[in-house]
Amino acid sequence: MKLTDINTPADLKQLQPAELQPIADELRTYIVNTLSTHPGHLASSLGTVELTVALHYVFNTPDDKLIWDVGHQSYPHKILTGRREAFQSVRTYGGISGFPKMSESPYDAFGTGHSSTSISAALGMAVASRMQGNNTRKHIAVIGDGSMTGGEAFEALNNVGLSKANIIVILNDNGISIDKAVGGLNNYLTRITSSPRYNRLKEQVWQRLDTGEGLRRRSRGVFQRMTRVAKSIALGSNNLFESLGIRYFGPVDGHDIVKLTEILTRLKSINGPVLLHVVTRKGRGLKQAEQNPIVYHAPGKYDAQTGERTLTGVHESTPLRYQDIFGYTIIELAEQNPAIVGITPAMATGCSLNMMMEQMPDRTFDVGISEQHAVTFAAGLAAQGMVPFCNIYSSFAQRAYDQIIHDVALQKLPVVLCLDRAGLVGDDGPTHHGVFDLAALRPIPGLTVCAPMDDHELRNMMYTAQLPNHGPVVIRYPRGASVYSDWRSPMQELKIGEGRCVREGSDVAFLSLGHPGNDAVAAAEELEKQGISAAVYDMRFLKPMDTRMLDEIASREFRKIITVEDGVKIGGFGEAVESYFAEHHPDQVSRITVLAIPDEFITHGTVSQLKADCHIDKNSLIGAAI
Amino acid sequence: MKLTDINTPADLKQLQPAELQPIADELRTYIVNTLSTHPGHLASSLGTVELTVALHYVFNTPDDKLIWDVGHQSYPHKILTGRREAFQSVRTYGGISGFPKMSESPYDAFGTGHSSTSISAALGMAVASRMQGNNTRKHIAVIGDGSMTGGEAFEALNNVGLSKANIIVILNDNGISIDKAVGGLNNYLTRITSSPRYNRLKEQVWQRLDTGEGLRRRSRGVFQRMTRVAKSIALGSNNLFESLGIRYFGPVDGHDIVKLTEILTRLKSINGPVLLHVVTRKGRGLKQAEQNPIVYHAPGKYDAQTGERTLTGVHESTPLRYQDIFGYTIIELAEQNPAIVGITPAMATGCSLNMMMEQMPDRTFDVGISEQHAVTFAAGLAAQGMVPFCNIYSSFAQRAYDQIIHDVALQKLPVVLCLDRAGLVGDDGPTHHGVFDLAALRPIPGLTVCAPMDDHELRNMMYTAQLPNHGPVVIRYPRGASVYSDWRSPMQELKIGEGRCVREGSDVAFLSLGHPGNDAVAAAEELEKQGISAAVYDMRFLKPMDTRMLDEIASREFRKIITVEDGVKIGGFGEAVESYFAEHHPDQVSRITVLAIPDEFITHGTVSQLKADCHIDKNSLIGAAI
Repeated sequence: MKLTDINTPADLKQLQPAELQPIADELRTYIVNTLSTHPGHLASSLGTVELTVALHYVFNTPDDKLIWDVGHQSYPHKILTGRREAFQSVRTYGGISGFPKMSESPYDAFGTGHSSTSISAALGMAVASRMQGNNTRKHIAVIGDGSMTGGEAFEALNNVGLSKANIIVILNDNGISIDKAVGGLNNYLTRITSSPRYNRLKEQVWQRLDTGEGLRRRSRGVFQRMTRVAKSIALGSNNLFESLGIRYFGPVDGHDIVKLTEILTRLKSINGPVLLHVVTRKGRGLKQAEQNPIVYHAPGKYDAQTGERTLTGVHESTPLRYQDIFGYTIIELAEQNPAIVGITPAMATGCSLNMMMEQMPDRTFDVGISEQHAVTFAAGLAAQGMVPFCNIYSSFAQRAYDQIIHDVALQKLPVVLCLDRAGLVGDDGPTHHGVFDLAALRPIPGLTVCAPMDDHELRNMMYTAQLPNHGPVVIRYPRGASVYSDWRSPMQELKIGEGRCVREGSDVAFLSLGHPGNDAVAAAEELEKQGISAAVYDMRFLKPMDTRMLDEIASREFRKIITVEDGVKIGGFGEAVESYFAEHHPDQVSRITVLAIPDEFITHGTVSQLKADCHIDKNSLIGAAI
Repeated sequence: MKLTDINTPADLKQLQPAELQPIADELRTYIVNTLSTHPGHLASSLGTVELTVALHYVFNTPDDKLIWDVGHQSYPHKILTGRREAFQSVRTYGGISGFPKMSESPYDAFGTGHSSTSISAALGMAVASRMQGNNTRKHIAVIGDGSMTGGEAFEALNNVGLSKANIIVILNDNGISIDKAVGGLNNYLTRITSSPRYNRLKEQVWQRLDTGEGLRRRSRGVFQRMTRVAKSIALGSNNLFESLGIRYFGPVDGHDIVKLTEILTRLKSINGPVLLHVVTRKGRGLKQAEQNPIVYHAPGKYDAQTGERTLTGVHESTPLRYQDIFGYTIIELAEQNPAIVGITPAMATGCSLNMMMEQMPDRTFDVGISEQHAVTFAAGLAAQGMVPFCNIYSSFAQRAYDQIIHDVALQKLPVVLCLDRAGLVGDDGPTHHGVFDLAALRPIPGLTVCAPMDDHELRNMMYTAQLPNHGPVVIRYPRGASVYSDWRSPMQELKIGEGRCVREGSDVAFLSLGHPGNDAVAAAEELEKQGISAAVYDMRFLKPMDTRMLDEIASREFRKIITVEDGVKIGGFGEAVESYFAEHHPDQVSRITVLAIPDEFITHGTVSQLKADCHIDKNSLIGAAI
């Protein structure tokens, strides 16, 4: 049997365990080949090939519920569950999602994208099954050691322990989240997996577990208690998870497919919550990815044979990404201001804080996947006179909404919150678009919220934010290329709440916030050819908003006033302008057109495609102006 | 020395340890007497009297940083740190806050109110101290076993373990959060504190620790390792906290003040993170409060001598609280619809889900302090066909903002989110006002957001939300009395997104959302006496909004259109109306006045006082209409 014969997990079940590895090998090759030209999350999925095959072989999906935490690692699952051909379209507009998605397949039991939700969801499903009289269905959450540090996972474990629900937590321990996993938990897992005392006794314990099969219920109870004692001795501890009431098994080699099927088959017969600790290697089977799993988390295009990444020629003159500007600039600022520290919850490479981490390891903190802690930790630092720059992806910052209100803004602490990946992110789709930040943060008293239109503006905003006598400042900017090639401008202080006119004009006015201002300028240039004179106002600050500039705009004879933003319309920048006009210039309100993201979740696709769909691209600006 | 001689902790330090208990006794009596007529959080503070005295006796506050998680238990701290007289004004308008507040005292190192933030903040401060060259300052987080289940606390512990920072976590274990603490962690703590094996060996271990004092640094290292081994044997385990790299001490009796001062003095000399497990009794020293700590968490007025609560006469005809309506109605609905389940994160009594919990224990889930888990758990249940009613206080639901977006709304799962304590809550102040919910939830696609104006409306909304073929529904309502005495109305389906005119009128129109509609009706009645005819439109739904009704209102000859809400103005209900008018009835926009909570954090005080301050009360409506 070949991979092409596997259309559903039922096909897999025709095989003997020993016949599974060739399928896994084919699956791995198929992923490596496909992603070499269709970029996606490579290394995570390579690490879970054997585990995925074993899970679908042993369990009765989709009746048994299988939930992939975060979902980066779900590609093998998608391919085995009826989406082998469709996988060619992964993360492309109209194609399948890069994350599990309930509406895409009944095998995707629960959608993911953000971390640490899987155990909570599995517990909900397990409780539902029990209430509906189904006591045999299994509910499986596969969660990485990185995601396990997210607080919600612990909240869920605290509830799982006492639930007696049929939950199997698979701890996929590869020592990596996207960057290297950090913290006490990771250290603990390393101690378990490398303990000679443990490893010596492990086999004996497993062998004794073997002999327990076939025993009657009552004997099995006694036997299980005995095994637990033996395991406790083997571990030299009541294990952390067992402290919480969850039976712990493992660690086992996550690439030994026969062993995995054996163990999973045994776990299937155990009622109540169990955790299986599986050790995998991120990037398994592709040398470069194994050696550099951080880069190969999402490597872009590469040569499928050699694994070498296909780097597009980067010239000095190419505009750097906003991420790079952030990374260089925070170092520059930190060299001048000893109070500055950098914080990232597990996204050091993605947000480019890794550069500061290398140069100033004592002043940079990767706190693991823990957005809530990251923000309150920053607040604690700020309370003692430091100037923390806390960099979080916009959509992940939703996790810290309460901390931004309660710990930072209420106490007026000078935390600088840099929201990376703001706006439409493209391929990653609805879970990752950073489109709610403006609307969610605008109502928070005392928060300064700004967005740079280009590299120089980002640098000026970062410079301004670290000066004394500010309250908290949020700077949000998109993923990807900035504007100028000569990005290293001298930094200067911006007046908080002051916008700028970047292009004079007389017929229509574009009011923009952040990077979309560049589309407004491009639209204005095209409109000029058509004889329409368009001004462009880069408002810079969502909050406080430059009301003097709005007053001036209202006083001029613009035929149309068009706002544009890469966030949701409801409660966003455009509505803020509408509200101000309604209250101060009601006679002018009819001239306003708001271009913003409509009230729906936006799918995945290229950013330019999605911007067009949302009517916030250059052509939409031109259309609105005519 | 008497309590009246203690104006700062320095005064305490004049005493010998054995002289502290009388001060503690006086302190306890002072709290009992004061709160008997000035209601506040009684039982938590009674439980921490000895601990607070010992902490201020041993540590050098405010240079050493002392952070009270949640802060209910901070009254003894406030009294000992210069606020003994001011304590008479606790939680009253213009008086001191019921929670620690940085701007109130240098002894309040970090403001709290929401749970599980203290360790993150302490770590931030500890890292700041180290970077500033101060290696002796101590940073102490006092956190209850209930708050310890909140995910952020775990995220923080995961970081503390490896930090080597000077942090002392005091785990105040009383088995209670506000309701009884639940989950695997609580079970684990109970096992530790009740283990005979542990207790037998504990004293020996402590005695050996004693002999370690005065050793040189190097010997002390060896000794500490030895002690750790001894403790590990005593515990029969590598303790859960030690798994994460934090040295564990305890459990100790939190009411033995001499012992506490001894232990804290020892811990003071240890560098790096430690956790001291202190066992206290919530309500300690007042019989009724000890016996019923849930009721005496915030008992209202009571007799200081007997402890008996001063119950105001409740008549059948008094309107019940919205909380009671929720509690009775969910049982009524659950009796008819077997898919309904109830979920609360540790607020069963406060939100009245405790009634269902008693009658239907298998269908009600107190998940502990874990708002994030609560929402994703609800989503998991909904994904399997259940209809979960998840009740969370509005301001605490900020903790689950990402889960509402990512797990519920994106997947269109029919979770019913009941946000209790929405609007201004009064005495608890800025951390607890539920004023951001409307603005924060309005931008989320696919969410229905509504607010009942009275008991019957709440019942109808709950009934409607549990019918099939809905997506997620948010119902938000305030703390306190509803409107009707005959609350048990037959329930009927509301059309989603349809408002109602509750009072006809011709001169001005009031547009309200939820409970403030009652102020609008009262204002309209007074205006009628002045010859002004005011209509009142109860919009019911923030989202989707009844645009047909808005069109009708726009088409009529109202002189003024006045919106009123008990949420923040920015991004809220009034701005939604302004935006709709700007886009569809621009000529009418000048007639709109928005009454809503201004862009600042609102202090504590009576709800009526705060409503007047915010210009959203009846008089403000009248003023706006004239």
